[in-house]
This record gives sequence, structure tokens and C-alpha cells, in this order.
Amino acid sequence: MSGTASPDAAARAAELLGRVRSFVHAEILPKADHFDALPAAPTPESARLTEAGLANWWIPAEYGGAGVSLRDSVDIVSELSYGDAGFAFGSFLSILGTTMLQLCGEDSLVRPHLERMARQGGVLGILASEEQAGSELGRITTQYSRDGGKVVISGDKYFSTNTDAAELLLVVARDAADDAVFSVILVPRETAGVEIVKRWDMVGMRGSATYQVRLHDCVVPAEYCLRGNGLRNLEIGLNASRILIAATAIGLARQVRDLSMEYASVKQVHGAPLVRNAVFAGKLGQIEMLIDVMRNQCRAAAAEFDGYMAQADPASAMYRIGTLRSALAAKMYCGQAAWQVATIGSEMFGGLGYTHDHPIGKLVRDLRYVGLVEGGDDVVRDLLFTRYVVPTGKRR
Amino acid sequence: MSGTASPDAAARAAELLGRVRSFVHAEILPKADHFDALPAAPTPESARLTEAGLANWWIPAEYGGAGVSLRDSVDIVSELSYGDAGFAFGSFLSILGTTMLQLCGEDSLVRPHLERMARQGGVLGILASEEQAGSELGRITTQYSRDGGKVVISGDKYFSTNTDAAELLLVVARDAADDAVFSVILVPRETAGVEIVKRWDMVGMRGSATYQVRLHDCVVPAEYCLRGNGLRNLEIGLNASRILIAATAIGLARQVRDLSMEYASVKQVHGAPLVRNAVFAGKLGQIEMLIDVMRNQCRAAAAEFDGYMAQADPASAMYRIGTLRSALAAKMYCGQAAWQVATIGSEMFGGLGYTHDHPIGKLVRDLRYVGLVEGGDDVVRDLLFTRYVVPTGKRR
Amino acid sequence: MSGTASPDAAARAAELLGRVRSFVHAEILPKADHFDALPAAPTPESARLTEAGLANWWIPAEYGGAGVSLRDSVDIVSELSYGDAGFAFGSFLSILGTTMLQLCGEDSLVRPHLERMARQGGVLGILASEEQAGSELGRITTQYSRDGGKVVISGDKYFSTNTDAAELLLVVARDAADDAVFSVILVPRETAGVEIVKRWDMVGMRGSATYQVRLHDCVVPAEYCLRGNGLRNLEIGLNASRILIAATAIGLARQVRDLSMEYASVKQVHGAPLVRNAVFAGKLGQIEMLIDVMRNQCRAAAAEFDGYMAQADPASAMYRIGTLRSALAAKMYCGQAAWQVATIGSEMFGGLGYTHDHPIGKLVRDLRYVGLVEGGDDVVRDLLFTRYVVPTGKRR
Amino acid sequence: MSGTASPDAAARAAELLGRVRSFVHAEILPKADHFDALPAAPTPESARLTEAGLANWWIPAEYGGAGVSLRDSVDIVSELSYGDAGFAFGSFLSILGTTMLQLCGEDSLVRPHLERMARQGGVLGILASEEQAGSELGRITTQYSRDGGKVVISGDKYFSTNTDAAELLLVVARDAADDAVFSVILVPRETAGVEIVKRWDMVGMRGSATYQVRLHDCVVPAEYCLRGNGLRNLEIGLNASRILIAATAIGLARQVRDLSMEYASVKQVHGAPLVRNAVFAGKLGQIEMLIDVMRNQCRAAAAEFDGYMAQADPASAMYRIGTLRSALAAKMYCGQAAWQVATIGSEMFGGLGYTHDHPIGKLVRDLRYVGLVEGGDDVVRDLLFTRYVVPTGKRR
Repeated sequence: MSGTASPDAAARAAELLGRVRSFVHAEILPKADHFDALPAAPTPESARLTEAGLANWWIPAEYGGAGVSLRDSVDIVSELSYGDAGFAFGSFLSILGTTMLQLCGEDSLVRPHLERMARQGGVLGILASEEQAGSELGRITTQYSRDGGKVVISGDKYFSTNTDAAELLLVVARDAADDAVFSVILVPRETAGVEIVKRWDMVGMRGSATYQVRLHDCVVPAEYCLRGNGLRNLEIGLNASRILIAATAIGLARQVRDLSMEYASVKQVHGAPLVRNAVFAGKLGQIEMLIDVMRNQCRAAAAEFDGYMAQADPASAMYRIGTLRSALAAKMYCGQAAWQVATIGSEMFGGLGYTHDHPIGKLVRDLRYVGLVEGGDDVVRDLLFTRYVVPTGKRR
Repeated sequence: MSGTASPDAAARAAELLGRVRSFVHAEILPKADHFDALPAAPTPESARLTEAGLANWWIPAEYGGAGVSLRDSVDIVSELSYGDAGFAFGSFLSILGTTMLQLCGEDSLVRPHLERMARQGGVLGILASEEQAGSELGRITTQYSRDGGKVVISGDKYFSTNTDAAELLLVVARDAADDAVFSVILVPRETAGVEIVKRWDMVGMRGSATYQVRLHDCVVPAEYCLRGNGLRNLEIGLNASRILIAATAIGLARQVRDLSMEYASVKQVHGAPLVRNAVFAGKLGQIEMLIDVMRNQCRAAAAEFDGYMAQADPASAMYRIGTLRSALAAKMYCGQAAWQVATIGSEMFGGLGYTHDHPIGKLVRDLRYVGLVEGGDDVVRDLLFTRYVVPTGKRR
Repeated sequence: MSGTASPDAAARAAELLGRVRSFVHAEILPKADHFDALPAAPTPESARLTEAGLANWWIPAEYGGAGVSLRDSVDIVSELSYGDAGFAFGSFLSILGTTMLQLCGEDSLVRPHLERMARQGGVLGILASEEQAGSELGRITTQYSRDGGKVVISGDKYFSTNTDAAELLLVVARDAADDAVFSVILVPRETAGVEIVKRWDMVGMRGSATYQVRLHDCVVPAEYCLRGNGLRNLEIGLNASRILIAATAIGLARQVRDLSMEYASVKQVHGAPLVRNAVFAGKLGQIEMLIDVMRNQCRAAAAEFDGYMAQADPASAMYRIGTLRSALAAKMYCGQAAWQVATIGSEMFGGLGYTHDHPIGKLVRDLRYVGLVEGGDDVVRDLLFTRYVVPTGKRR
Repeated sequence: MSGTASPDAAARAAELLGRVRSFVHAEILPKADHFDALPAAPTPESARLTEAGLANWWIPAEYGGAGVSLRDSVDIVSELSYGDAGFAFGSFLSILGTTMLQLCGEDSLVRPHLERMARQGGVLGILASEEQAGSELGRITTQYSRDGGKVVISGDKYFSTNTDAAELLLVVARDAADDAVFSVILVPRETAGVEIVKRWDMVGMRGSATYQVRLHDCVVPAEYCLRGNGLRNLEIGLNASRILIAATAIGLARQVRDLSMEYASVKQVHGAPLVRNAVFAGKLGQIEMLIDVMRNQCRAAAAEFDGYMAQADPASAMYRIGTLRSALAAKMYCGQAAWQVATIGSEMFGGLGYTHDHPIGKLVRDLRYVGLVEGGDDVVRDLLFTRYVVPTGKRR
């Protein structure tokens, strides 16, 4: 499966992928309505994913995890989101946090968390975006101040996934003493002052749980701050999560393709099955192309990420590069391709496709998310321009 | 307002439009959530529309109606759908049936219905589409057979709006004695054998009510059949309803524009209000163009329709021409423009726009309908090609 | 043909349109290669257009012209550009200048020019754009200074069509004494100091002739300045020319449609003529829709223009409104639709369509121009936003 | 550079790529006009490419070639087409033939040709498409008949690149004795009966030379037929050439990006350099994304191709699989992305960009070719559908 991996690692990854596929067919696909109903989090299916030894599959072996590469994680996420994209999203999003822990945290601080998550599953919550700081994180107003060996954190966070069920939160906050300094701070979920304001009633991806959160004078030891600039650390973590968000679109597009083919085998047009109609064939050919290109872009971006992680000092290397061009391109491309698939899909099933009796409506809503979360197109285009077009030396 | 109308008619139309606008601001706009909740039909707001003397505004003066031209109806529908597109859809869709009654029915048969609808409001139900006959009505299997002075009708109809609340249904059925013959038949709602199977749980336009209906040996007098080929009669009626469906996109797009401008006056980007951002300005400039072009296309198609209705023998003229190129183009163009607006709109409001706390999600769902109902793009393209491109003499 | 016109005017317009069509079939269509070869200007065909009494058809009857409305001119331009879009462009572009003359000039000054152009044809040259002032005319550096009863004009103008063959030039220049003041000044072609720097080797529309021009101390009487702000005057004239530029796309799209149908009647795909292929039908149905919508938008914008011209004081009315929303929308929409047609067309004819043995390549180049000239999409979107979206009262 | 290659191979590939880049900057970039003028073939620059040891770089070491992988060839083609896409096209297109020779020919037959091409450069001509058999090669009418130990070939071929300068032609023909059998036959260029009918005057890619060719009773030994079904053999070769055609779009897009950045550093908009304009930044960000995705798709497809070539029996493996999904997806995706870049580019440079004084017009014409040659979108969509969507087992 993986181009660069040893035969052993490839076999292990293939075996794991097979188990994910079985899990999806047994536990997820039969329950589409359940996931779309904004089920209580964590879902029973999350627990079963842990029981199956599949939770947090990407955590490295040195912490007791399965150590699956990001390259192979792309295929796992494609399988999970073929089942339910919201469930997939909730299952992999902790990678944003574990990547930061791994690269930017003291081993003694982060090891227990990573080992626990490898052993018994569970999620991390990332508290970054705010009402006035969605795409521009430099506008964050959540603050921390040092008070002896402690830091005290207060602020309102807008969109944060998995937070309620997490044992550990990672909060991006601004230094009260210096406007220009940001940190990522570990805040145990049970810390006094962490308040879940509400769970958002999302349009799609409703198998995941996203919250508005308030932090009111939360106190944690000062060493709970990760090393380095908080916004840069976040960029590093986003490299992983953006690639896997992009990969959810692969599974969703595959689902649209398969539903379309099923429909076309029974639907008649001009006296022949739809499957023999040239316009239909053209739409499916286009979707197949998009699937292939999305997959290859996600894999290439993930392989680049894996390459940094395999370096002697991955933390420094990744800190220097910051947000990866290929990860940005994967997120943006898959968002645009997802919307192309949603557009084709939402026209495919006639009137029935515009009712809740048919699953396409849910898929269209899920597909929309890929282009919005962790940077809409305008934000990502701007990042690509500023980071990779303006500096002549970075063009290629 | 209307290019060709007399000054008097123009003044009346402007006055009526003003009243519609007031109605929308008082009765519809404050209740967006209500309409999106699939409210029981008919809604109290429908009753209030009738009280305000605004129901079925297009019915000609000779039947006691306000006699508003289709040209001016475009603006009325734009106002109504600015409030709620589902409510608008339910309010105007009877024009599909009243047009058929007016042009294809015996005066003695249809006059009482048209006079009642002019006087006391109320809706018509059109029973045309079937599960295996959505876009291709030639595949209809609902049948009628003559039995003395009666006809007996049986069959399953898939999507039919307003049916439950209607006093009169218009059923498109095939002659049991001759496969190639179709009729439109008047079936009073209370006729034995008319069964509402279910109300569809629509993705959008939820302020309207659409049903699956079964007809089981419904018996009506043989003279309840309209004159002429049933499929041709339906085409004639669709000319009116397709143009007004297209017009719903105008109101929806105006709503997206106004919400965007409101948002942009408070949202900050790169240290300045969004309203001063060039990318935002470009999006709004594009939407403004689409609004203008949609409006002009709908008005032009409606004026062509009005032109036929003003002829000495409108029934013959319309029967000869069948489906109007301009009406097809209006429906298809506005469907495509609507989806462009939906795409821009669904990216406009960041994460909040992906929650049910923000109205854009509903607008996106409503916008989708324009391109699907009464002929998706593939169907309309095929009609335009067959009717207006292949016959060299019809090209212009 | 024209909605609001008297029967007589409609008959005259129809008759004229018929003559234009005959002219195009006799004089233009057989010579596509000739026009694409950047022929010397004016072409013999321009002379023949004048002989046929068809030159400058829009000049009002009070100046001895045919007085065709802009609404009817849309159809004339569609016919001309069906023949050759460059020829059409060169034939109608003087309307930008005659409109300014009519609305912003002293009768004694402009009447001789308008009468001459009505009587014997000929063109006007507009000198507006500069190398650093393409879309932003406020950046114009061409200056005029008053010297007694004279003005002296100097500057470099970038793109100016018809200039070499014109008897009269209209120069947009800035007041040397006041940076904020602009005027449109009549400069006879033979004025000393008018220098044609070069004729541009255009990518398309090569049947027209566009020049780079230098003005070196050109001296004209001070009363040769038109009334009012020069940039506003230009906006007024652009209303007419933008609508007719938009209309060239109609003729080009019709030509692509007809060539495609011709091709599809002989080309075989999957064992059947292409004309029976569903994908082909879909493309042609889409083009037919675009043609209909372009035509209706151009006609609506032109009818709005005609409405202003029919007012008691058209100059004041038009000066107040400035650039018309509908004219901007027509230019932008037709530019985008033109590019859609070009995209479809450039894929239609296989390898042959990528050679100069087939006319589609020329049509694609011509189609591109519609979206570029007199304001690219970014410029027009910005104008629509600033003029018609930001001012709440102008929204509709 | 190459993911799977040994460090040595990677270093050699990087070194070669550096030499290609230098060659392009020295020999190609300064002569854009020369290549656009349909220069006589072969060009002096082709000879210089050979002198520089860069011709036919992909020929395996066992034939004396540089043995560059297809994966690394993607980057070479991107560099060449950054210089001139037509020159690139002419330089790599022989890979279509050499791949067939390598996989489907007897060693004794093909080795001399491959060794000569490795040693002294030169090109192959592929004679496949016909006037009535562009996308559907099953409609080929060129025939061969066996006559003792000879075959005699006659027919008309439509588009064939490099033919006139080639020493060897590969002709796809139908067996006169059995309509269902096709062969690829080696025909030395000097064989009696090979007639160049004309060189096509192409719209773009004019640095390459494409011909219409007639074969009149050409006689070659019967063993000059390659093994296996001729159409399948062609599919195998097209895998390589389609991927490299796709890769030309990368270089073209990079050129558009760099030209845009150059322009934006001097062009002023709203009182600031264009490079600081948000709309401009968005366009460049989009192009950068497209470049990254095109490159990764081409590399992934090429790596898949290389994987087959590295198998124990590459010929059987490739013959079984036929046309590669990833190669089709690369060709189609890059064609669509190229057109997106062309659309953005053709609007970028204002009026100047619509003249032959600016290079963008040429780039737009070159970009168009990617989507047309070796299968337009309709053809490729159909292939993807038939080969990879309909067979359930091939979906992934």
C-alpha cells in the first residue's frame, strides 16, 4: 500500500485497512440515520472502534500505538468516511493535537497522554477558533497570564470538536503580557472553569460533536505550555488534520459513485437503463477521475508529512517549514472536488434525492464541510500565495 | 413596472407588489424557522395571504381575480421567496393548473373553480410525476378507462404539491384503451379513492407541502377530461410554473446578498471590515449580476407567455408552440445561477454558516430546488435541443 | 421585434434586420479568413455597408439617421457578429462616441458630425485607455491645458479602435490645472500632433482595427470640450457600447451552435451520428439556453437605455444614473457565457478544431474578447458592488 | 526527487533535471516567438538537445539510454514545457512508440531502433488517428494484407506528430482478412508509398510538427508487426505519453504564474501594486494549488507505470491492465486544470494580454491542447467509466 514502506509495514497497514473496512461494513454503514441525528458523544461506535483496536491508529509504536503512517491513514479515513464522514472526522481529528504533543511537548508531559490514547482510545479537544478569529487566528483574544508557577487562562472558544468527551484539551491563547506571543497550553478537561456552552447543531458531519466552550480562570501548571510559538505549533498539527479532512472527501465521493451506479442499474431513461446513458457515464467518469486525483494528492501530501516525521529532528524541520504546501493544496483541492461531486450527486436522483428518504442529501451536506473546515478556500488561497508564491525561492 | 402594460395596469401592479412586500416583512420574514419546520399545510400564513387579497393573484379579471400578468408575477414571486421560497412555491404553483383550466377546459367546467380560487384562495393539486416517470412523463402508468359517461382512474403519483389542501386535483393519466393517448382529468379532492400516502420530508422548500398520492378507482364524469393531449396540456401549464420557479431564485439570491452585506459590515478581515475586501466585493458583484440576469430572463419569458395569452385564440397558439424556449431557458438558467449563489453563500459565513444557527443553510437547500423541480438540467437541455436546436427553422 | 415600439417602427426594424442578414450572408460570411488576417482598415466591406445604407444605423432620425433603437440594435449586432465579430465591433463601436456627442455636446458642435456619419458612414475614434490606465480611468495622465480660447492636449493612448480611419476623435484627458477634472474633447483626426504609433496585432476580433496613439500638443478650440465630467460622459457612452459588445457574443454563440450541428450530422460516435449522442445534445441544449439568456439580458439592458433616451431630458437623466446596472450585467454575463461557449466549442471538433483549417479557433478567440474589453470581470464586479450593492437604496 | 529510487538514481535524475533546466534557459526561453512560428522540423534546438545528451532520456540503460523513470520524466517535461510546450511535446512524444517497441516487439527487431535513438536522438512517428477515427480507433480503415512474407499497408492517417523527421513509423492498421484484428506495424520512413500530405497549421503547440500522411501500398516484412492486439498495444504506449502530456500543463501553469507575478509587481490597482490585491492573490493561490495537484497526480500515475515496468514480465502485466486509470485521470485532470489556468491567465493582463505583444495568448493556446490530444474529456470519461466504474471489482 505504501510506496516507501518496508514490506512488513505494508502488510501490517493492509491488514489494518482490511479490519477498518470490515468495521465500517458491520458497525457504520447500517446506521447512517443514527449518525445524522446528532447522536450523543461519544457514540457507542467510538467505543467499539477502540475495542477493535482501531482507535488513534496513527500514534507511534514508541507510545504503544499502531504507528500507521499518514500515507496509510489516508486510506483508513477514506474507508471510515465511506461509512460516515462525521464519525471519521471525530475519529481522526485528535491527530491535530497528538502531532503537536509529539513535536512540541516535553516527553514527560505528553507521553502519558499519548500512551493512554494508544491504549484505551479517547479523544483530544483543540480550542483554537473564536467568534472573531475563525480563519485569522492572530485575532484570538483568549488570554493566559503567568502567576508564579501557574498560568491562568480565560476566553471564549467557538468551534471545538470532541471537547466534551476529551480528557485533555489543547488551548491556543495569547500571552497577556505580550500581545505578539501565543502558546498552546494543555488543560485537563476536568480543570475548574472549563464550561461547555453548547453543542453546535451542525448542518452536516453530524456524527461528530462540536462545541462552543468557555474558559473562566482555568489554572494549570506553567510547564503545561508547549514549546514554541502557539500559532506555529497549530500550523504543524493542522498539516496532519487538513490532509485527513481532505481524505474524507475520497470516501464520500466513492459513496456517491456507488449509490449512483446502484440507482442507474434500475432507473430507465429513454427506454434503456440509465447506466447505458452517455451523460450518466460522463458524470461517473468525471467522479472517478476526481477520486483518483484526490487520493493521489492526499497520499503525496501525507508522504511529505511522513518524510518530515522520519527526519532526525522532525520537530525542528516541521517548525521551520510550518504549513505544508501539499497539505494546503490537498485540503483546498479536495474541498473543490467534493463540491463538484456534491453538485453532480444532488442532481442525480431526481425528486427523491431532494427528500430525506434518500441518503444523497446527507452526503451533500457532509461534502460541503471539506471546503469549509480548517480554512475555507479564500484563506487557503491566501496562505498558498503568501507562503509559496510570493517567496520566489519557494516556487517550484 | 411592466414594459407593455398600460399606465393603469402598471400602477395597479406596483400597488399590489407593495402590498406583497409589506406582507412578507410582517408575516413571513419573522418566521423563517417556522417554515423550515415542515409546518402543517395550509399554514396560517396562507390564510392570511388570502385575507390580504393576495392569493392566486394571476387569475384573470374575468373570473374575479386580480389579473396580474406573468411579467409582474415574476416580481411578486421574487418578493415572496425573499421571505420564504417554500411559502412562495406553495402560493404560486396552482398557476400550473389554472393555466390548463383556462386554456384547455370547457368554460362551464372550469369557471366555478377559477372563480372560487379568485374569491376565496385555495390551491390546486397537480398529479403528474410517478416513481418511474419523473422527467419522462411518457412513462406514466396511471390509467383511466371510460365506463359509460364516467371515467375510472387508478395509479400511484409520486410528487404532488398542495394536494392535501386542494379542493380540486388535475390528474395526468394514460388512456387504458390507447397507450398513446393521455388526458388531464379534473378529480375533486373528496372523490372516493384519493389517498394521501405520505407527505414527503423534503430537504428544502419545507414551507410547501408535497405528497405521494394513490388513486384507487376514482370515478368522475367523462366531461371532466380537459381538451387535447394531456402531455401537451401539461407543457402549457408548465410554461407558467417554470418561469415562476425560476423567479424564486431571484428572491433567494437577494436574501443571500443582503445577509452577506449585513455580515460584512461587522466581520473583520486583515484588519478591515469584510465589506472593504476585494474578494468579498467580487463575490457580491457576481451575485448582483446574476440577480439582474435572472430577473431579466424571467421577465422576458413571462412577457412572451403574456403575449400568447393576449392573442385572439391563446389556447390554439399555446397548444401549437407547446413548451416555450424562454421558459425552459429561465428555469435552467436560474437553476444554475441559484447554485452559483448557493456555492458562494455556503462559503461566506465561515463555520457559523455550517450550523443551524445561521439561515444560509436553509437558503442553500432552497436554492438547490430551482434546478431540480419540473425538469433537471439534463431534461431541460434535452428539451431545448430537441425542440429548438434540431429544427433548423426554430433556431434564432 | 421590439416590445414597446409602434407597429411601424417594428416593421422598419424588421426590414432593416432582414437587410443586415442578407448583407452578412453575401458580404461577410464568405470571407472569414479575410477578416481574420488583420485586413487594412477601413475594409471594402465597411464601404459596402455604407452603400447599403446600413452604416451607423442607430443615429437618430433628427440627424438623418435610421434611428434604430438600442433594443433593435442588439439583434443587428447579433447578425453582424454571426458573420464576423471583428467587423461587427468596428461597425458599432462609434456608438460610444455618438452617444456622448448627442448627450453631452452643444448641438452646433456635434450636429455636423452626426449628420455626416448618418449620411456617409464613417467612424469615430475614442481615445480613453492608457498603458497605466486600462480599467482605472482615474489614472489617466493625458493632459489638456487652456491657452486663451484653445486647449492643448498631450499624452499617450493605448487601445483605440477605428482611430486611423476616423474623421473625429474624442479624447479623454485630465485638466492640467486641476487633477480632479476630466474632459472629453473633440479632436479632428487631421489635427497636428495626432500620431498613430502602431496598429495592435490583436489575438482575435481581427476584422476591427485598434491602435496605439500619441497626442503631441494637439490644439483645438476650447469649445470642443463636451459638457460635464469627462469620466461620467464616458460612462454614459459605455452604456451603449457595452451592451452591443455583449450582443456580439450572441452572434458568435449562434455560429458555434450552427457549426456544431453541421458537424454532428456527419460525425459518427459509437455507431450513430453525433447528433443523436446524449452528451452532444446536452452541450447544444446548454448553448441554446445561453443564447436565449444573453439575448434577453442584452435586450432588457438596451430597452432600459432606450427608456432614458426617450425621456424629456435624457442627458440629465443619464448623467445622474451614470453606468447602468443592466449594461454592466449584460457585458459581464455575456462575457462569461461567451467563455462557456468557447470552452464547449473548442472541445467539439476534435483535433481538426485545433487547426487553422477549422473556423472554431477564430470563434474562440473572438469570444474571449467579450469578457475583456471595456472592463474585465474584476472591474465590472467592482463597479456593480460599489454602485449597486453598497448603496442600500439602489438594491432591488 | 523520486520516492522509490535508490539514492544514486535520485542523484542522477536530479543532475539531469538541472541540465534540462539550464538547457531551457539557454536555448528555449529566449526563442518563444521562434517556436510559435511553426518552425521547420526538426528545429535546431532539437539537435542541440541531442548534443547535450538529453534526447530520449527515458530509453532504458540496456539500450544505452539514460534510463530515467517516468516519475522523473514528469519533472523534465515540466521544465521543457516551461520553456516551450510544443518543443516539449515533440521531444517526448516518441515515448509512445518506444514503449510499444520495448514491450511488444521482438528484441532483434526493436533493439537497433532503441539503441539508435538512445545514441543519436531522433524521433518516432505514430500513425494511428484517421479522419473518421479520432477518438474511436476501432473505426480505423487503414488496412494491411499479408502477401507471402510481406505485409502491404494502405490508408490515410490524419494527425501524426514528428512523422516527417522520423526514421521509423509505427502504423496502426486493420487486418484486411479479419475486421476485428489490428496490428502495430513498423514502417521505415523511407518505405515507398509513405507520403506526407501536409503539415497541419496548428492553433498552438506550434513548436511541434504534426502531419497528415498517406500510405499507399507500403510493403514491409511480415515480422515487422508487433506482438498482440494493435489497439491494446497502443493503449500501453498511450499510458506513457498521456502522463507526459499531462505534465506539460505543469510547466505551462508555472509559466503563467511567474508571468503574473512579474506583471503584478509593476501594475497598480486602486493605488497599490497588484501583488497586494486580494483578488489577484486568490487567483495565484488557486494556480499554485493546481500546480501542486497536477504534479502529484502526474507523479503518482508515472510511479504506477514505473511499477509495471519494474515487474518480472512487464509486457504481460501491462497488456493485461491496458489503459491505466491513473494515466487517464492525469490526462483529464491536467487538461481541466490547464483550462482553468488559461481562463485565469487570459483575463490577467488586460488589453495587452489580448495582443500578440504579450506571451499569454500563446500559453493559452498551448494549455488548450492538453485537454484535447490523445483523448478529449468525453472520450476519457467514457474510458474511465467503462473500464473502472462499471466493473465493480475494479472500483477502489
